[in-house]
Amino acid sequence: MAKNITPKEKNYSEWYLDVIRAAELADYAPVRGCMVVRPNGYGIWENIQAVFDKAFKETGHVNAYFPLLIPNSFMEREAKHVEGFAPECAVVTHAGGAELEEPFVIRPTSETVIGHMYSQWVQSWRDLPILINQWCNVMRWEKRPRLFLRTSEFLWQEGHTAHATREEAMSETFTMLDVYQRLMNDELALPVLYGEKSENERFPGADNTYSCEAMMTDKKALQAGTSHFLGQNFARAFEISFQDKNGERAFAWTTSWGVSTRLIGAIIMTHSDNDGLVLPPRVAPVKAVIMPISSNEATLRDKLEPEAVSLEREINSALGGLYAKVDKQYHNRPGDRFFHHLQRGVPIRVEIGEREFEADSVVLVRRDTAQKERVARAEAPNRVKELLAEIQKNLYDKAKAFREANTHDVTNMDDLKKFFTDEGAGGFARVYFGGTPDDEGEIKYVTGGATIRCMPLDDDSTGNCVYTGKPGARRVILAKAY
Amino acid sequence: MAKNITPKEKNYSEWYLDVIRAAELADYAPVRGCMVVRPNGYGIWENIQAVFDKAFKETGHVNAYFPLLIPNSFMEREAKHVEGFAPECAVVTHAGGAELEEPFVIRPTSETVIGHMYSQWVQSWRDLPILINQWCNVMRWEKRPRLFLRTSEFLWQEGHTAHATREEAMSETFTMLDVYQRLMNDELALPVLYGEKSENERFPGADNTYSCEAMMTDKKALQAGTSHFLGQNFARAFEISFQDKNGERAFAWTTSWGVSTRLIGAIIMTHSDNDGLVLPPRVAPVKAVIMPISSNEATLRDKLEPEAVSLEREINSALGGLYAKVDKQYHNRPGDRFFHHLQRGVPIRVEIGEREFEADSVVLVRRDTAQKERVARAEAPNRVKELLAEIQKNLYDKAKAFREANTHDVTNMDDLKKFFTDEGAGGFARVYFGGTPDDEGEIKYVTGGATIRCMPLDDDSTGNCVYTGKPGARRVILAKAY
Repeated sequence: MAKNITPKEKNYSEWYLDVIRAAELADYAPVRGCMVVRPNGYGIWENIQAVFDKAFKETGHVNAYFPLLIPNSFMEREAKHVEGFAPECAVVTHAGGAELEEPFVIRPTSETVIGHMYSQWVQSWRDLPILINQWCNVMRWEKRPRLFLRTSEFLWQEGHTAHATREEAMSETFTMLDVYQRLMNDELALPVLYGEKSENERFPGADNTYSCEAMMTDKKALQAGTSHFLGQNFARAFEISFQDKNGERAFAWTTSWGVSTRLIGAIIMTHSDNDGLVLPPRVAPVKAVIMPISSNEATLRDKLEPEAVSLEREINSALGGLYAKVDKQYHNRPGDRFFHHLQRGVPIRVEIGEREFEADSVVLVRRDTAQKERVARAEAPNRVKELLAEIQKNLYDKAKAFREANTHDVTNMDDLKKFFTDEGAGGFARVYFGGTPDDEGEIKYVTGGATIRCMPLDDDSTGNCVYTGKPGARRVILAKAY
Repeated sequence: MAKNITPKEKNYSEWYLDVIRAAELADYAPVRGCMVVRPNGYGIWENIQAVFDKAFKETGHVNAYFPLLIPNSFMEREAKHVEGFAPECAVVTHAGGAELEEPFVIRPTSETVIGHMYSQWVQSWRDLPILINQWCNVMRWEKRPRLFLRTSEFLWQEGHTAHATREEAMSETFTMLDVYQRLMNDELALPVLYGEKSENERFPGADNTYSCEAMMTDKKALQAGTSHFLGQNFARAFEISFQDKNGERAFAWTTSWGVSTRLIGAIIMTHSDNDGLVLPPRVAPVKAVIMPISSNEATLRDKLEPEAVSLEREINSALGGLYAKVDKQYHNRPGDRFFHHLQRGVPIRVEIGEREFEADSVVLVRRDTAQKERVARAEAPNRVKELLAEIQKNLYDKAKAFREANTHDVTNMDDLKKFFTDEGAGGFARVYFGGTPDDEGEIKYVTGGATIRCMPLDDDSTGNCVYTGKPGARRVILAKAY
């Protein structure tokens, strides 16, 4: 057990911050609520960006960049949008040494300013669809910040598309939801549920919001990504109109979708343990650390380190990238060196001591299970590659089993209330719900905070509403959430 | 001659904006002085980012992310820094519905907040060097904005490093200057001069600034990148100190270096012509456009388009990326289709008409020279690859010859004044200068704006100062600049 990490059973949120601190992923900035993403954390974000960006391009999207500042008047054009975001905005009132005529807000999201630009770019049906994404920073002032999960500034991507028909925009909304859930499963080892949001939880200004929902190891839900069908709301507010094939003027249909640095929080809380960070190999910046170990300096210099450096090259070649790294912190004790990388979530440790060197072998140690195995030196690069795939699969399977073990059918309000108390099982309650937004609010109140996370798209069964008792209600997942 | 583009001889700055508009690279945003980088422009930026990021990592740097907002008090800790940047800052005074106790500025550059973080991360000499870069947006309020060259918000990278010794920090400063000039030459086809800045042109807070300077086709200079040796100025202001090997407390030595979306402006003004954008192949998002051409729909559908699609695949395979694109805008006339891609700077057009199809050949047309050649279909992918390299080299050679033809030795003030008048040759004046900052100011005044662009590092000759006449003066390049 690590001394510098509070056990998660004792205090989950302290454990979370301790894991981040020990792995040097992020720090609070000197600006309240903002964070510094340190190189170890940013490396994870770069890997996330690479896989998502590739998938966006494969589905026909291109990147662009829109301005950080949004005129206040733009925010006010879509009634629900301004209601949802205005309380969280940071406002620029002065610039270039003078007070501004109209204040600007720092973008909390960019539907408004992008809508304004699209209205200028779209004239005819031939200009559609527009399929644009941007990677950028956004700002939503947070009263209770938490690193990666809720910070006043965060990094994200926001896709914004405009289409000639409702059907095309709906199809885009689902395409991106599908991209999200596939990449979260396959690359981040996050087994997410995906479905429609209830009215209460919709994006301000959307007709429909769809989300991916993951379960953290404290059984709370985390919304990991959203895809919004915006109908014609922003097209009307910003006059994105075009001449259709029949020569008639029509409003476009738009969508938006995003994932953020929050995903790093989800990865931490899904996979890490009381020793510190555990990373799925596919997003780990360093996938294998190679450790020459000896108390004899000459042995290190003449035998072990050269061997480690060759192995680094061979592993990198087997993995097709610069993913292995030799640890040369010989001034530290081996135990401290092990721990250094273990707390940073490096998936595999490769040990080369004198005994291994003489026997032409190495020892491989998995971060996820702590299992050790001795393999012939020549087989090491391929075995590392295999092991990384095994670790990735194991983390996904474990997380999925955990979610399934903590998802329960609940059929009446008494059981539901009990489910979310300290004596209850907690986790995801699978219920039928057909009530109003107010009924949902009442459930949130009596359960101490549980909300509808989503109505799963792959479950079209119906049943009696847990709240009203009426039949024909839809399946929903209720949980407390980050 | 393109009707939608003002000839550069007539009005260079209108020509510049027309080229950008015709290529759909960027638009002014609804926020004064800010820009929207459209997909065609952002694609160039992504290619620039890729090559620079790779080089940063190869020289041992890692990426991170620091906050957008900087407490006002931080800016004031380094006297020259605040003097240089305060007049350009945008200020956040309200957030989360309330007035802030201390206002924040939106980062114009991040030495201050990064210095603050480094002071917390550095304790011992073992924590050094810190070699961090960040890709982000910055804001410097502009009174006379111009797309890509001077906008209130722009995108850039800023490297910030901290070292145990002066020598290491100096070496880092030169390493990054060298990376910059190499990539500008090889990837962007910008033949840059590189050297030290004079005191007047230094970064506010730096002991020394080094820059890469390019010549635009109106003979004005453009500063394309800078590398700053910051001495211990920021280390002292933010208390970045450490215990050295002898157990003594010492201040770190820091550097910073950056390139921005300004580079896109440099590329446009170095290579483009009166028909529109010309792009060096290595940064062109689309490197070859393939055009099936026929007035017969069946021929297009059954013969030419399938052929074009196979060729696209083969060219992409030869180039190792998704760089070729089939043009299917059959509703437009061939001339309009040619022009569409020509104005977007696509380096090579591949034409496949019926005649070419029957003869098992294609026609290749270069953007830079308009030269056409007919090649056998089977040879097309390799020939495209060769041609791209030829175009890249031609653009570089042409730009270098232009700079050399417009660089002149000037030895006295009368000639210098004349050089920068309408009757003079204009361009880069190569002079010796050993005067004071005030003398430099006087030269700027009498020449109508010429400043010392840099003191070239590869020229250590000395001579009589053009201003004072005193011997032993250093070689400097004087020019009017963007």
